[in-house]
Amino acid sequence: MPKIVDHEERRREVTKVAAQLVIQHGRAALTVRNVAEAAGCSTTVVSHYFDDMADLFFETYNYAAGRSRARIEAILAADPGDIIGLIEAVLPLDQERTDDWRIWFAFWSEALHSPRFADEQRQRAIAQTTRIKKCLTSRAKTQGAAAKIDIVASADRLSALIPGIAAEAIFDPATWSPARQRKVLRSELALLGL
Amino acid sequence: MPKIVDHEERRREVTKVAAQLVIQHGRAALTVRNVAEAAGCSTTVVSHYFDDMADLFFETYNYAAGRSRARIEAILAADPGDIIGLIEAVLPLDQERTDDWRIWFAFWSEALHSPRFADEQRQRAIAQTTRIKKCLTSRAKTQGAAAKIDIVASADRLSALIPGIAAEAIFDPATWSPARQRKVLRSELALLGL
Repeated sequence: MPKIVDHEERRREVTKVAAQLVIQHGRAALTVRNVAEAAGCSTTVVSHYFDDMADLFFETYNYAAGRSRARIEAILAADPGDIIGLIEAVLPLDQERTDDWRIWFAFWSEALHSPRFADEQRQRAIAQTTRIKKCLTSRAKTQGAAAKIDIVASADRLSALIPGIAAEAIFDPATWSPARQRKVLRSELALLGL
Repeated sequence: MPKIVDHEERRREVTKVAAQLVIQHGRAALTVRNVAEAAGCSTTVVSHYFDDMADLFFETYNYAAGRSRARIEAILAADPGDIIGLIEAVLPLDQERTDDWRIWFAFWSEALHSPRFADEQRQRAIAQTTRIKKCLTSRAKTQGAAAKIDIVASADRLSALIPGIAAEAIFDPATWSPARQRKVLRSELALLGL
């Protein structure tokens, strides 16, 4: 048992190093050699923890999803109707959330042609829309008759706004400040009476 | 003069071949050898038309922007207040528009770290937001007092919806059909009374 735990833990540590490489130097910097150098170990050790390069790529991509899921779960555990919190958990409003998007965008080229990446991307988007629907339903209930909204259409709009705002902010952070991102989200919710 | 025309025309033809390679086989397939093979010429000929690989990459990326600009200009020339047309011109509703997004997403990894790509991405997004603002203003004027909308906030939301809907639809085309994309856009405009 301890051996398995160590293996998983070490694999996660190497993945974290790989993610940092992608964030700072881009997708092209993700080589076994660079990961080994940054992790302070041999290339043999890196290769030991991953089946192949595709496995290392996928784990790195998944690293951002794991972090974002943890943020989302914390928000919804505190308040299942916190629609602002749910969406802000995955907008690039601080370093960690910005880094997550830099990782995702770095692998979208892969996601266009690799079924494994494409499937993860699709499932994550579907899960997010489902969460938004549930959260809107919970929020609308709390607000009572004040919020008579089309849950399905609203969830679709809010779901699409997430990668959309992220794309604007990642490529133009000077103009798309956290304040502007928040304003866009709030103006959409205001139209819904939320 | 004829020589320059030929050079530009031939460069555009090779770029089109390069774009098709990216659309069908992904960013990794974009090599001088593959472009030469697909274009039916030698690698020397391909190299003749581009300064270097970075130039070939950038022209390929720009190819999608050129096509989308042409669609947008045609829409606005017909009706400067056609906000639906303006946005649908860059949603992945048919093969050409889908292909444009496949090209853009294929190079977002580059756009994260190359100033040239990042600048093009940013300028294109800013231009689109400006066009949406003008178009909303024109549309609101035509509709008179019925449309009392916050142009800036609405333009920001609509601008963000574009890459957002595109991301959903490109990675989940089976679920995000053209009908669903159109519904999301129209539901947003309906909230604005447009």
